[in-house]
Amino acid sequence: MKTKHIGFLHPGAMGISLTVSAQNSGHIAYWASEGRSPETYKRALKKNLVETQTIEELCDRCSIIISVCPPHAATEVAEQILQYSFKGIYADVNAISPERAKDIGEMMSDAGIEFVDGGIIGGPAREPDSTWLYLSGHAADQIATCFASGPLETEIIGDEIGKASALKMCFAANTKGATALLCAIVAAVEELGVRKELETQWSRYDPEFAQETLSRISRVTAKAWRFSGEMEEIASTFESIGLPNGFHLAAHDIYQRISKFKGADLTPAVEDVLDALINP
Amino acid sequence: MKTKHIGFLHPGAMGISLTVSAQNSGHIAYWASEGRSPETYKRALKKNLVETQTIEELCDRCSIIISVCPPHAATEVAEQILQYSFKGIYADVNAISPERAKDIGEMMSDAGIEFVDGGIIGGPAREPDSTWLYLSGHAADQIATCFASGPLETEIIGDEIGKASALKMCFAANTKGATALLCAIVAAVEELGVRKELETQWSRYDPEFAQETLSRISRVTAKAWRFSGEMEEIASTFESIGLPNGFHLAAHDIYQRISKFKGADLTPAVEDVLDALINP
Repeated sequence: MKTKHIGFLHPGAMGISLTVSAQNSGHIAYWASEGRSPETYKRALKKNLVETQTIEELCDRCSIIISVCPPHAATEVAEQILQYSFKGIYADVNAISPERAKDIGEMMSDAGIEFVDGGIIGGPAREPDSTWLYLSGHAADQIATCFASGPLETEIIGDEIGKASALKMCFAANTKGATALLCAIVAAVEELGVRKELETQWSRYDPEFAQETLSRISRVTAKAWRFSGEMEEIASTFESIGLPNGFHLAAHDIYQRISKFKGADLTPAVEDVLDALINP
Repeated sequence: MKTKHIGFLHPGAMGISLTVSAQNSGHIAYWASEGRSPETYKRALKKNLVETQTIEELCDRCSIIISVCPPHAATEVAEQILQYSFKGIYADVNAISPERAKDIGEMMSDAGIEFVDGGIIGGPAREPDSTWLYLSGHAADQIATCFASGPLETEIIGDEIGKASALKMCFAANTKGATALLCAIVAAVEELGVRKELETQWSRYDPEFAQETLSRISRVTAKAWRFSGEMEEIASTFESIGLPNGFHLAAHDIYQRISKFKGADLTPAVEDVLDALINP
């Protein structure tokens, strides 16, 4: 199998796990350092990524570029590529709506770039059977090949741009939507003075549920800043097919209220999270 | 213990289970037949409820009246009582917001009627440890006494009107909110052409989850007409304390779309439910 030169924009916790699967599969992973954080620099150095200073240089040296970034940045990252003469395959594996994936796909096609739609389910890929990259589009198999040796798993679901993003949106609609709902509910019982009673009632069905829920609420604060944008993408996905968008606009609001915990050294106490939810 | 004469407005599937617990506890259960359905008549006859034709007569003969009806009818049922000279205890055990419970409570106090707030968690009470009636208000213990022998369980949570309703709202916010969310998600994957893929992905975490979810979606149609109003009450509860109401306004919309299955002879096929969700 031919060694591929693959650029990653930009290797965060998830992205770096993709670069490792690419390296495991015999390929060379690149990153563009200009304007990136010291954390990204450390990650890239640790995993022996090839550094290019600029995105332009990365475009010159790579035949495949994979965009893995927070959803709100997906279009901006794609537009940066269009400034240069990149003519390979561009895969967007971000948590964006199928409509936005199609828009980016059209921008790319118009510029003579082959576009692949992707969506990642699971956390950073550290072991087999834990993280799935779903892909759709004519060149989906060429992206799947980048990660053939894993631990990232890949699944191709047809030629149509938007399918991989649709699946990602609907999967996250439940997991991240349900967590946001629980945040709102525990904030409500706290404010209404019946938190102890709800925890007791929950315990009648499942002795672990109350404690697990409180822990889930504290832990989600670390990713809330990123989930917030993803909830808007899901809301827009639902709206585009005539289903109510309110679940995920509310979830967006909830994650916004706790996004200030980004980068906190310690997982906050549940009382502090509830305070942020009730007094935004 | 003194035998109490307790009026139930109006004994549906849940209400009739309350009358049985009252009878088990040595009390006499009444119902008012005027304008009620043949189904209610059959239920009341089967359980040997004492029939009064009018609500006026029920007010005359009972010292306690318990309102157990769909949330949208709670205020109307309360207003009917105020037309007569009832001076006993009136308990509203419906799925209504704390604010609405307080409003009804004030109406009752102004008319010299003692008000108790209630909320029921669980299905119709057929065995112990399955259904809980939460109560709040100064006369909460007198309502608890009505059901002392069960199988309905009672829990008093203080004197404050609204606490019992708050707990009910927040408990249902999760159970019925999460079911509505799943209805929307499965409708979305059906419409977006990735239902099979989502079911496969769900099965990777829990082999039963996809099938259980489809079954849950089919089964909820029987109660959707009633849940719809309850979702509005939860939305209003959240709004009153500055939390996003969108989760449950969306859930209201979802249950509205499938409320037409009320009274269906058979549980509908999931395809028919999804069609109703996608093409309201």
